[in-house]
Amino acid sequence: MRNHYLKRVSLKNVELTEGFWKQQLDKISQVTARDILEKFENDHEEGIMKNFEWVVEGKTGEHVGPPWYDGLIYEVIRGISDIISQNYDETLDLKIEEYTKKISAAQNIDPDGYINTYTTLICPNNKWGENGGSLIWQHDIYNIGCLVEAGVHYYLATGKINLLSCSIKAAMGMVNVMGEHPKKNIVPAHSLPEEALVKLYYLFEDDEMLYSQMKEAYNLEIDHNQFLDLATFWMNNRGVHHNRTSYPPYMGEYAQDHCKVEDQCEAVGHAVRASLMYTGLTSVGMAQNNEKFLKASHKIWNNVEKTKLHISGGIGAIHNEERFGFQYELPNNAYLETCAGVGLAFWAGELNLAYEDSKFMDVFERAMYNNILPGLSVDGTHYFYENPLISEGDIERWSWHSCPCCPPMYLKFMAALPTFIYTYKKDEIVLNLHMNSKAKIILSEHQIVVEQKDGNIPWSGNSTVVVTTEHPEVFTLSIRKPEWAKEYKVIIDNEAIETEEVSGFIKISRQWNGETKIRLELSMPVTKIEAHPYVSADTGKVALQRGPILYCFEEVDNPQGVDSVLSTEELEVFEKDIYGTVPCLKTSFVDGSEVVAIPYYLWNNRGKGKMNVWIRQDEKIGSQERREENTSFAAHSLGQMAEYEDMNEWENILYREWKNPNQ
Amino acid sequence: MRNHYLKRVSLKNVELTEGFWKQQLDKISQVTARDILEKFENDHEEGIMKNFEWVVEGKTGEHVGPPWYDGLIYEVIRGISDIISQNYDETLDLKIEEYTKKISAAQNIDPDGYINTYTTLICPNNKWGENGGSLIWQHDIYNIGCLVEAGVHYYLATGKINLLSCSIKAAMGMVNVMGEHPKKNIVPAHSLPEEALVKLYYLFEDDEMLYSQMKEAYNLEIDHNQFLDLATFWMNNRGVHHNRTSYPPYMGEYAQDHCKVEDQCEAVGHAVRASLMYTGLTSVGMAQNNEKFLKASHKIWNNVEKTKLHISGGIGAIHNEERFGFQYELPNNAYLETCAGVGLAFWAGELNLAYEDSKFMDVFERAMYNNILPGLSVDGTHYFYENPLISEGDIERWSWHSCPCCPPMYLKFMAALPTFIYTYKKDEIVLNLHMNSKAKIILSEHQIVVEQKDGNIPWSGNSTVVVTTEHPEVFTLSIRKPEWAKEYKVIIDNEAIETEEVSGFIKISRQWNGETKIRLELSMPVTKIEAHPYVSADTGKVALQRGPILYCFEEVDNPQGVDSVLSTEELEVFEKDIYGTVPCLKTSFVDGSEVVAIPYYLWNNRGKGKMNVWIRQDEKIGSQERREENTSFAAHSLGQMAEYEDMNEWENILYREWKNPNQ
Repeated sequence: MRNHYLKRVSLKNVELTEGFWKQQLDKISQVTARDILEKFENDHEEGIMKNFEWVVEGKTGEHVGPPWYDGLIYEVIRGISDIISQNYDETLDLKIEEYTKKISAAQNIDPDGYINTYTTLICPNNKWGENGGSLIWQHDIYNIGCLVEAGVHYYLATGKINLLSCSIKAAMGMVNVMGEHPKKNIVPAHSLPEEALVKLYYLFEDDEMLYSQMKEAYNLEIDHNQFLDLATFWMNNRGVHHNRTSYPPYMGEYAQDHCKVEDQCEAVGHAVRASLMYTGLTSVGMAQNNEKFLKASHKIWNNVEKTKLHISGGIGAIHNEERFGFQYELPNNAYLETCAGVGLAFWAGELNLAYEDSKFMDVFERAMYNNILPGLSVDGTHYFYENPLISEGDIERWSWHSCPCCPPMYLKFMAALPTFIYTYKKDEIVLNLHMNSKAKIILSEHQIVVEQKDGNIPWSGNSTVVVTTEHPEVFTLSIRKPEWAKEYKVIIDNEAIETEEVSGFIKISRQWNGETKIRLELSMPVTKIEAHPYVSADTGKVALQRGPILYCFEEVDNPQGVDSVLSTEELEVFEKDIYGTVPCLKTSFVDGSEVVAIPYYLWNNRGKGKMNVWIRQDEKIGSQERREENTSFAAHSLGQMAEYEDMNEWENILYREWKNPNQ
Repeated sequence: MRNHYLKRVSLKNVELTEGFWKQQLDKISQVTARDILEKFENDHEEGIMKNFEWVVEGKTGEHVGPPWYDGLIYEVIRGISDIISQNYDETLDLKIEEYTKKISAAQNIDPDGYINTYTTLICPNNKWGENGGSLIWQHDIYNIGCLVEAGVHYYLATGKINLLSCSIKAAMGMVNVMGEHPKKNIVPAHSLPEEALVKLYYLFEDDEMLYSQMKEAYNLEIDHNQFLDLATFWMNNRGVHHNRTSYPPYMGEYAQDHCKVEDQCEAVGHAVRASLMYTGLTSVGMAQNNEKFLKASHKIWNNVEKTKLHISGGIGAIHNEERFGFQYELPNNAYLETCAGVGLAFWAGELNLAYEDSKFMDVFERAMYNNILPGLSVDGTHYFYENPLISEGDIERWSWHSCPCCPPMYLKFMAALPTFIYTYKKDEIVLNLHMNSKAKIILSEHQIVVEQKDGNIPWSGNSTVVVTTEHPEVFTLSIRKPEWAKEYKVIIDNEAIETEEVSGFIKISRQWNGETKIRLELSMPVTKIEAHPYVSADTGKVALQRGPILYCFEEVDNPQGVDSVLSTEELEVFEKDIYGTVPCLKTSFVDGSEVVAIPYYLWNNRGKGKMNVWIRQDEKIGSQERREENTSFAAHSLGQMAEYEDMNEWENILYREWKNPNQ
């Protein structure tokens, strides 16, 4: 049924070649991945893997880290698998082998293939949160979901089935327990396992040899449809609390369990759980060709995109319970967890497979540059959990955290990034992300090579797309027109061609033969952005953007302060050295003092200090501090909303280019 | 349709006569009501009534207190109306007259009868939370609901229709705006107006003269069915966000707007909003004979009673958003707002009308003695907002608060208390609450007088019920058997009679003639209570109770500490002077030191200090501090849950008498 939908290119067939993102990925393989491993291995002195050893030893009463630590190390394995899939690294591979032995040994203690070290060590009577446990706290299903992902990615990277066998045993353990009566109504309290089981299903669907391989090596009889069935059961039983045996039986908005998925129309609750739930909903929806699921996902997406998305692509405005706020509740001191940005990007990528609309990848790109990327320091070893758009000077990236979920999530996102650049189906190749890269894609059994080169994203919108076919091939190349590129040119053979635009994609349909070079010129003006009038946190303020890059004012560049009123003078682009030369912006406050804005993702790399993204443009607006009061419920009602003449102009728009009301 | 259901006795026909509750009510009329008026009148220097004056003056940009201040003063009027209904007091009546003039003048500014001083003064474009306002913050509908209550109660107390005319105009203003298409889908963001409109509907249903009176005096054409229709619309449109024009359109669990009422099965969100929503749901359910509404209310009730009710009758465990926790999430440092206790009691009273089951009034009584009553100090001028079951010594009643919602809610509860004592229908009189009181009830057009006398509730379970009829009458007297009375005797003419017990009510069916004296003896042993094993906050602990009174350990009586381990010695009842003599309890800790427990409602009347309700009985359990960590999600999973042999014993029970596992 997948043929309706776009497909991703596997990591074996796509790579970043040079430039901004290649450098980021190199830093992550060379520095960050090793930093994360080292910090986990020395975490709480004992190190994260001690939990697995303790399970083997039969010890109880102690556990290193919170209950989701198993999941975090599996996430790291998944990320590293993706890295070594592209650039094999024996040290990293041996590390996974070592971990796999410990995981496998711990799993073998339980005849059901169950593995969650926290539950086994701390509350063995509460498996799956039953008998009055707390699935929300214990993370049993979530952790196994991460193990499934790890096994699948490690297998895809190396062809090794050792960790995959652990994934399958654990997944089968869930299949045996959960499902329609007489099995139990237990659903994940933290999403991710849904998408993981769909991946496991596809793995067998695509690779018939794998059955016999698993049978031979591990004596595992696998019916892979059961994995998809369980993921579907989970989706069908959100909001169905009858006979739920895990605790708490009603998990509410917090875990997107407040009503049936098809009745969900608003993004609510814990933003990481939510974004991963919606990702899984889309995956299961496509795998089952279930319109009900896909429509719900799309509806919730629109709710986020039009009312709950910060300008940085961050989601989850509220600190308490790390959750979504109400519509238009977009305070600048918001939570905006790095992990939630990753979840949002995954969800966008999945919806783009189902619906092929540039709006999804626009948000993906926004989150990637401005909510995820800031999560890592220039040195590659310091991390943000929260990504607010204002700082009083008290926020810093940490070296390590008591809940270090963001580093693994960052790692797995960056390592998977190449797979989001291109998608394809029968007669179409889609270029979703503009970055220097190369992909080999099979259309109708013939290989097509698509390459983006000579681009300087995110600093310039010009690049060359080279399409190479061995034989003449007829298909459509769809190139995403980013929302920030108000104008663009497509030049083939030195000639600007007329193109059709469908759902934000520039369509080039032709017979391709040999090598075709397409010169792409995307305009990248500096713009002042204003937010919907209902976003009272941003009334009378603007944010600065150029291409996909959001800018901010940092105290180190602006000792006179970062919360004054901007003049209407032009914004000048100039080069500045912030660990390498980057385009920055220069303008002035109304008092005439010069101000400098730098890319938001680079902030807090030059010491602590105040920072501000939304800067006052209207002198009548009070300073930030006063405005942030009561944001929780008073978001829209403090009487400071300007009188807009025509609200129709704002229909379905959350942000737009600032219009000077005095012109 | 009301004939299916029990009815309350109006305040004109029922009164407290002497003893514990009469003293409380006297204190409230003589001290607390005046204290509240004075504090509101001097609040924020300008005083609460300034808002109405400013509206008349056309001033904008300033408002005294938060947006729900209109509602609070209306609540005070309602409470005082109930007080003067029983004991007329000219000073208080003149105060209401004075307020009514100001309210009426402010209302007359708006041709639609709309009145919400906050919105008019601060954000006039956001009436009803439209145009990007925040109904959750503004409280437009809630405030008008309180005005409706105030007008109805003042009319019932005095026969005056001046304030009632304001109520009706405001209600008609809502009727004109909200409802089925082409009217607008706007529902209350804070419940209460639902029940208020049902009351207004009944007022006209029961009093045909009122139409012409309102027409003559105010030229108001009233179709009172519209009030019930709007309340019903509101109930039907919870969770229906399509075309919702108020902001935020989706108000979620916070305001019980996450799904349709008939799909709601779990108590969630803001506990005061929730309890008032469920009260209104029950009222509308009875008025419309709507089984769907009544069943939903009953289902949610069971969820609360079996999994979310603190031993004190408090609800709303979580400080953030003042909301319900998950099932069995009952931390001792819980929020348990006084107002939520009042809401719960109102809901219980309403469900008791529909279902006549002692379980409702058991909870009513529990909340009244142990969650509401503690809200007021012995001196009658200091108030608790939160009523946690443990204190580190930092909690004190305040003289006034930036959100002084509890004093008015306390006042209106206490003033309305007499109406909950007795209920009746065609051939039955129900005695719900045991307290010295007298009611005149008309059954089949004949007056019956029921009196409780010589009782010493809550300290003794013995009292006399006197039934007096003018003529021989056949009906059933149903006397609630409190859950704390394990044994009881009913003695008529010096003879213990056999009685039938139905749904927790002792049924005495006979022909009553002249005066019949019933001697009632309810046992009142001291008991140690234990909580369901899933309530990890109380693992290995007990709470002490005697009759309806919950006890606590206060530092002033126990300088050696209040968080030690109790011995299994007998609990001795002794008299102690705490602003009057009250029965207290004496026993010992395992170290042999003597410990004293006092009624919980009396705590913090002798200075600041530590306090504890749930005291360790099992030496293996760690001290309180350690246990409170991570209560939010780890409620049930810290591995400290004792191994219970038979969980079936706990089916449908949240609390039970402690069983010594060593016996």
